[in-house]
Amino acid sequence: MTDTDVAARLSALEERVARLEDELSIHRTIVRYGFAVDAGEADATAELFTTDCRFDVDGRTMEGSAAVRAMVLGDGHQRLLPDAAHCIGPAVVEVDPDGRHAVAVGYSRIYHRDDAGITLFRLGFNRWELERSPSGWRIDRRTTRMIGHEEAQGVLRSALVDANKGEAI
Amino acid sequence: MTDTDVAARLSALEERVARLEDELSIHRTIVRYGFAVDAGEADATAELFTTDCRFDVDGRTMEGSAAVRAMVLGDGHQRLLPDAAHCIGPAVVEVDPDGRHAVAVGYSRIYHRDDAGITLFRLGFNRWELERSPSGWRIDRRTTRMIGHEEAQGVLRSALVDANKGEAI
Amino acid sequence: MTDTDVAARLSALEERVARLEDELSIHRTIVRYGFAVDAGEADATAELFTTDCRFDVDGRTMEGSAAVRAMVLGDGHQRLLPDAAHCIGPAVVEVDPDGRHAVAVGYSRIYHRDDAGITLFRLGFNRWELERSPSGWRIDRRTTRMIGHEEAQGVLRSALVDANKGEAI
Repeated sequence: MTDTDVAARLSALEERVARLEDELSIHRTIVRYGFAVDAGEADATAELFTTDCRFDVDGRTMEGSAAVRAMVLGDGHQRLLPDAAHCIGPAVVEVDPDGRHAVAVGYSRIYHRDDAGITLFRLGFNRWELERSPSGWRIDRRTTRMIGHEEAQGVLRSALVDANKGEAI
Repeated sequence: MTDTDVAARLSALEERVARLEDELSIHRTIVRYGFAVDAGEADATAELFTTDCRFDVDGRTMEGSAAVRAMVLGDGHQRLLPDAAHCIGPAVVEVDPDGRHAVAVGYSRIYHRDDAGITLFRLGFNRWELERSPSGWRIDRRTTRMIGHEEAQGVLRSALVDANKGEAI
Repeated sequence: MTDTDVAARLSALEERVARLEDELSIHRTIVRYGFAVDAGEADATAELFTTDCRFDVDGRTMEGSAAVRAMVLGDGHQRLLPDAAHCIGPAVVEVDPDGRHAVAVGYSRIYHRDDAGITLFRLGFNRWELERSPSGWRIDRRTTRMIGHEEAQGVLRSALVDANKGEAI
């Protein structure tokens, strides 16, 4: 092997390992959203998003991580605690080859407990667009649509690929 | 280090990284099945399987990806849309050392929404046997068994290992 | 590149790949717990734990893998079979840089089927502390708390990080 061969194989490996690390890191980021909101941690929730993020829940949109923080502290969310569980996934994560952007698509389920038992009261179809920041991956856009509408199906469809054409369907 | 040492370490790393990529790719494949059937995309569903696949649902078997495609377009499935969510996992994926075959074992849950709320109407125990194709991993065999029978328990048992013997129990 | 440069890059890659393998291996270990208990395999369940493990369920603690084995064989658990599904996750896994210890945090859901349908009767918030053994990762401590109490929220909180300080909140 020439020195050039060795350098090329090392660089290729470093790229591939970085993309694997990214993929697992992004799974952790979107799952941690559930931990943060279920624990009522507004700051930790906001830190998962970019400052100028857009979080669209069935057409009602939070603009900026300050709005996400306010949502966690708001009556609507606080009323659910400590009886809520936001379970994210399964999800498919795809990282851009440059390692700076990524998209995740998948399901989310919100459970609520009361004396009668545990109810699954929201099942959402989600698309997350993430950006790498100096302190890790952050959510720049999240779009979530309640199950039961064509638009929700479109969210899932965006993660399918036409294998014959190698492009999104 | 000799040139031989370097080449051996590079090759070993390339193998290990390829197996990690395979494991994550297979998780994406089995999760995308849910996206495809929930979006009603018959072609995208069929493309996740090998042409001569076998998909066995409680003993009723679809033979070939054309039969899987027909299932998505059939009345039984279409009646569920757009109110169905097929959530795959958690699953354990094991890739053969040669990187050509893999087995995944895990749970699947099918939810249906109507005006009364969201119902989990099927919980399955699954075994997927996958093959590498030029365009990625494809499902060659899927066996799913509804919870509540010994045979279903056997599906999960097939992913357990006798740590003392290093072989399946 | 000098020989030293090549050796350093190889070593760094080998470390990173080992940590990725660890993270995926640990996901498989905690998910296999579900397979083992749902299949009623007491030995396979016990083998997922260290000999002197501590498994704390809402304050009732099993001490040692022999106690975990006895739990699987006990009336309380056997009564659920073959109608139980223990679905682990989503979870966040973090491996110590030395590759000898790891922590996983996440949700668990126990479903039970009967003629009336499928009920989610337990939703837990969990922390697993794992150790590497010669035969793979084992669970040394598991703490699970039923949803609906501040202590349960604390389990999830332990996996959140103050991004400004780089330390746990």
